[in-house]
Amino acid sequence: MKKILTIIAAALLCTAGFAQQALQWGAKPIVSPEINADGTVTFRYQNAKAVKVQVSGDFIKPQKIQTPMGEFEVAMPVDMKEGQDGIWEYTTPEAVPSEMYTYSFIVDGKTEIDMNNAWVNRDISTLTSVLLVGGGVADDYFIKNVPHGTVSKVWYPSKTAGFNRRLTVYTPAGYETSKKTKYPVLYVLHGIGGDEDAWQDQGRACQIMDNLIAAGKAKPMIVVFTNGNISQEAAPLQNSTGYNIPTMSLPQTMEGTFETSFPEIVNFIDGTYRTIAKKQSRAICGLSMGGFHSLYISLNNPDMFNYVGLFSAAIGTGNENNPSPIYTDFDKKVDAFFAKKPAYYFIGIGSTDFLYKANADYRSLLDSKGINYEYMETDGGHIWRNWRKYLDHFAQKLF
Amino acid sequence: MKKILTIIAAALLCTAGFAQQALQWGAKPIVSPEINADGTVTFRYQNAKAVKVQVSGDFIKPQKIQTPMGEFEVAMPVDMKEGQDGIWEYTTPEAVPSEMYTYSFIVDGKTEIDMNNAWVNRDISTLTSVLLVGGGVADDYFIKNVPHGTVSKVWYPSKTAGFNRRLTVYTPAGYETSKKTKYPVLYVLHGIGGDEDAWQDQGRACQIMDNLIAAGKAKPMIVVFTNGNISQEAAPLQNSTGYNIPTMSLPQTMEGTFETSFPEIVNFIDGTYRTIAKKQSRAICGLSMGGFHSLYISLNNPDMFNYVGLFSAAIGTGNENNPSPIYTDFDKKVDAFFAKKPAYYFIGIGSTDFLYKANADYRSLLDSKGINYEYMETDGGHIWRNWRKYLDHFAQKLF
Repeated sequence: MKKILTIIAAALLCTAGFAQQALQWGAKPIVSPEINADGTVTFRYQNAKAVKVQVSGDFIKPQKIQTPMGEFEVAMPVDMKEGQDGIWEYTTPEAVPSEMYTYSFIVDGKTEIDMNNAWVNRDISTLTSVLLVGGGVADDYFIKNVPHGTVSKVWYPSKTAGFNRRLTVYTPAGYETSKKTKYPVLYVLHGIGGDEDAWQDQGRACQIMDNLIAAGKAKPMIVVFTNGNISQEAAPLQNSTGYNIPTMSLPQTMEGTFETSFPEIVNFIDGTYRTIAKKQSRAICGLSMGGFHSLYISLNNPDMFNYVGLFSAAIGTGNENNPSPIYTDFDKKVDAFFAKKPAYYFIGIGSTDFLYKANADYRSLLDSKGINYEYMETDGGHIWRNWRKYLDHFAQKLF
Repeated sequence: MKKILTIIAAALLCTAGFAQQALQWGAKPIVSPEINADGTVTFRYQNAKAVKVQVSGDFIKPQKIQTPMGEFEVAMPVDMKEGQDGIWEYTTPEAVPSEMYTYSFIVDGKTEIDMNNAWVNRDISTLTSVLLVGGGVADDYFIKNVPHGTVSKVWYPSKTAGFNRRLTVYTPAGYETSKKTKYPVLYVLHGIGGDEDAWQDQGRACQIMDNLIAAGKAKPMIVVFTNGNISQEAAPLQNSTGYNIPTMSLPQTMEGTFETSFPEIVNFIDGTYRTIAKKQSRAICGLSMGGFHSLYISLNNPDMFNYVGLFSAAIGTGNENNPSPIYTDFDKKVDAFFAKKPAYYFIGIGSTDFLYKANADYRSLLDSKGINYEYMETDGGHIWRNWRKYLDHFAQKLF
């Protein structure tokens, strides 16, 4: 089943005697993007004065490029063609596979979002437009006619940071009405530059949970999305200090402070929500930096998590050389952690991910110790489409 | 105190060895908008190939224009000037007063958001960039270093609609830890085309509540932001039916169904949250269509709300002629409602609002009956900056 998610309606406001400060006249409706009956997708952009217009996005098959930081896969922009009324158009040559994509227009060299598509994605500080194609892997990313969990932005007091910090908390449908039921908890961690909104927005994690739980494929659970940038209160635009964008140069992202502070989050959640406050009912997973965090948080708290998921984990990046005791005695901690027989350990990575080798090395270590884990290798690199897949798989294995 | 809320950081990502799928190289940092030391604001936009670039927004002093729908105040776009490297610039001639503004660039006739500003506002389906200037009325709209309430997206079962519908619920700081404290509830309703996100995004209602409560100017309260488009589940992008944009042609917006269904929301809130479930601890207010809804919901449920606020209420729009019993016996219902002596009744409107006369007529009716209410008349028309002010004032009078 294909769905057209994006319909322009600015023009419809012309009929409005009063609209909330958004009066517009004379705009012509342009549908972009449009998922056609044959599964191809048409992008449209109106600008009679533009000389060259391209569309760029991860729906385009990527090519390998070399950079000073190594080999990356990049989807090269494709040209759009100008038609009547200055409307530029591009239709994909083939049906676009089910997935969540982001895209932009490049107009005479300048990147723009699709102003006819109100679905804007913020990834750190980069804005793109969103295209969601159903009929396959992305079906769990849609909002469906199923019971929905509650999604809350909650502030917890961090003694480590010295200020309150923001979390996203998903409580499953029925949490409010069940009154006495206690739930297991999954902690989901973002990557570098990300924040407590990332898994909700790019990760579609709340839709994945709604749909898995409704289908009986995952147990009802509380899901907590932390902010791993311990020096900050919250996502950009949500800080009392103004608009601070997390970067690699942000202090304290991968040097032990966040990992050390993690139990204060678990205590807050157990004190605030109706949780089953024990190891058997706690899971942790994360992508990239969040996989690194998940690895060390679980190793340093062997009685806290019974389920661990490492998604393209940023291990072997040199951050382990930080002096924090979080990173010492690695081998000993691995032995101690697995001696307690965690219920499920998952490692997922893309075959072209730049962290592939570091993860293979870690797997070799586990193999040499005869430790059981599940391994999932997917196509592509260090990208959200893999992390969504891993979460969808991991959540079904829990509790 | 002036704050610069918007700083570009895409270029900073260049230093990132791995960033969440947002790798960029060679971008040059452009700061836009920039609030200068003298209070003027500079907007910047880079495009060497553009012929004419303007900036449009409500920071520009509006002019009156005539339309088939009557006289409107419109802020006319101003020209930007091209400088080095194709960077177009405009600096306001005077200090920009404290307020929350939205703006766009018009590039050779095409409207664009500011891609250097990650703060994007969605008003129905129109995207704009946001500028927040402190030092005055907008100080309550900032996220400050104060305890923050929890903001949740919650779905309630609507028997009237036949499906689950989405609410935004604000619980004040301390709600989670106090465990047994019960709170009064304020219901806040949006205008036509709006949704349960509008007051949170354009209205800055959660920041207003955080700041008023922290300053001791408002009582800690639960605030519920409903969705008044009863034929829909939720805001655009949040529906299981796809991306549906509310319009004037949306069925059942102002014909009695939503008003009739309102007690099911109150029952859900009282059943789900620790509320003081009685008239003395309930308030309702709304803007435009939401003011119309607030008027009729309170009149038809005279034992439900002790505090009522009408913000630019869309009364006298002809919707009262709908056959719903909600709209009959108006005069009798007014008498019955005020005979029960509500604690506080507020009417606010802009002096150039197209609904001014209808509200003046309603005030005359109340005056003729010797009914007490507070009246606030502000500059300008049917705009968010008035509605934010009214909420800020109204919330301080409650409970």
